[in-house]
Amino acid sequence: MVTIEDVRAAADRIAGRVVRTPLLEVERLSDELGSRVFAKAENLQHAGSFKIRGVLNALLRKKERGLLPTGVVTFSAGNHAAATACAGQLLGVRVVVCMPPGAVPAKVDAVRRYGGEIAFTPNLLIDAEALSTERGYPLLHPFDDLDVIAGQGTVGLELVEAGPPPDLVLVPVGGGGLISGVAAAVKALAPQAAVIGVEPVTAPAMSHALRMGGAAPLPIRPVSLADGLAAPFAGIKTFAHVKEYVDEVVEVTEDAIRDAWWSVVDATKLLVEPSAVVGLAAVRSGLVTPPAGGVTVLVLSGGNTGLAALAGSV
Amino acid sequence: MVTIEDVRAAADRIAGRVVRTPLLEVERLSDELGSRVFAKAENLQHAGSFKIRGVLNALLRKKERGLLPTGVVTFSAGNHAAATACAGQLLGVRVVVCMPPGAVPAKVDAVRRYGGEIAFTPNLLIDAEALSTERGYPLLHPFDDLDVIAGQGTVGLELVEAGPPPDLVLVPVGGGGLISGVAAAVKALAPQAAVIGVEPVTAPAMSHALRMGGAAPLPIRPVSLADGLAAPFAGIKTFAHVKEYVDEVVEVTEDAIRDAWWSVVDATKLLVEPSAVVGLAAVRSGLVTPPAGGVTVLVLSGGNTGLAALAGSV
Repeated sequence: MVTIEDVRAAADRIAGRVVRTPLLEVERLSDELGSRVFAKAENLQHAGSFKIRGVLNALLRKKERGLLPTGVVTFSAGNHAAATACAGQLLGVRVVVCMPPGAVPAKVDAVRRYGGEIAFTPNLLIDAEALSTERGYPLLHPFDDLDVIAGQGTVGLELVEAGPPPDLVLVPVGGGGLISGVAAAVKALAPQAAVIGVEPVTAPAMSHALRMGGAAPLPIRPVSLADGLAAPFAGIKTFAHVKEYVDEVVEVTEDAIRDAWWSVVDATKLLVEPSAVVGLAAVRSGLVTPPAGGVTVLVLSGGNTGLAALAGSV
Repeated sequence: MVTIEDVRAAADRIAGRVVRTPLLEVERLSDELGSRVFAKAENLQHAGSFKIRGVLNALLRKKERGLLPTGVVTFSAGNHAAATACAGQLLGVRVVVCMPPGAVPAKVDAVRRYGGEIAFTPNLLIDAEALSTERGYPLLHPFDDLDVIAGQGTVGLELVEAGPPPDLVLVPVGGGGLISGVAAAVKALAPQAAVIGVEPVTAPAMSHALRMGGAAPLPIRPVSLADGLAAPFAGIKTFAHVKEYVDEVVEVTEDAIRDAWWSVVDATKLLVEPSAVVGLAAVRSGLVTPPAGGVTVLVLSGGNTGLAALAGSV
């Protein structure tokens, strides 16, 4: 399991190569929710999402051991792909990513901007494993990797360090890497805080795993406006972290995500993607009650989206 | 004239009541422009723009002297109106604002959210003066006021303190309050930096004043997508500061503003209004050349805009 020491080590390792993103108080959401609302603005991170934290921690650990590969293969709806391409460019590592054919254009563009090579396929994991063998590049798992989880945990470390002690931290959940790391950090530093995960009801990999008692592939193909959260399965390691550290995982509807999207953009003045707004969607759906007069933190996971999609949301 | 001491005094006065907005490095614009590009994110300020800085400085100075009025009247395309309403709510001062009938809805909403009273009129200054007499509330000028200018100057102070020494600072120009304060601060602290103002060619109050040799009303009614910059005249005091401190004022077309808008939102992941993007529009129009390998700062003045307008821009 990832510990706070692992997260601190990751923070030291990636310092100066990632943005220490601002924690912004959001007056309008505070007024609406009756709780002091802060936003951890990971949309302002390099490559447009928190993902670079985990990737860099994993690659830099390999480098410390003299094991930095000449290339890596990975798979992703897009943000992890862009982050890996960005990190690869920084460290001189070739990056090949499997992405779904329906990946949002902003994410495809981001991967290409950093020189990543893309293979479009609906069979992300299987084809990534095949490519890994074919090219002789190791597979970097987008979320079920302890170094990746520790890297994502720096989001939790920073939000505790930068703001008042949190009472509630709302975290988007796809495969579970972000919430695993954030919960490990937050529960160590601010044990009074509830850490609640939010995923789309149409892409409920972690909720499904919790119901099944273990990480099991979803019986349906996950599809959501929150494309970044449409993981086909939770990780074995992330499932274990969620069981250990996370208070609850709730599921929000597509309508709730759509309704929350422009609200968050307008109230925060941040361009965020739909995956980032599921926390507000959960509150507005009555699934989570923010602590009255307490401190609520929304982890805004990323901002890679297009204007046409945003405009189509209202 | 406003000096760096005035700006420092304003910074002390308003500290804790305004957001020290982040100065964010914008990798994609740096790549495009061949200069390290930083954005001063005043869209993240209270009431959605830099305007609260000047208003608060002016009102708090009155309060220090025991002269805080029970109400104020002002006029504005919207951001100064929202900021005055916000400051009024904070300090217990009634706020009446004259706004143009075509003010953007996001700005009207912001004024109302803070309890401001709005009188819609095309004759902003004349009707504001009449209302001031009628109500017995003093007129708070949106830009041609030394306390307002000193407050806006804190944007310049902060950007110099937060980043590497700037070589070029690009500032949107409406009536000239922001650039007057920013230039006073930047020229004192980073005299090597060029400070260049940018205004719409369809709303060129300051350029017109410079051509006429003094602050003179525009012979046309200014209209621009950059609604926040459509001042009908430059201030007498702001003109003096621009003459003294500003290197150049350039004019950009509506097409250039429209083209730059989503580019800035996408590259910075910040929701900004069109007035905020004129700096990039000027560079892309070839009117300003960023220092190769140097440091360019874009002052992103505000973020009060609607999705329909943004969607209509592309």
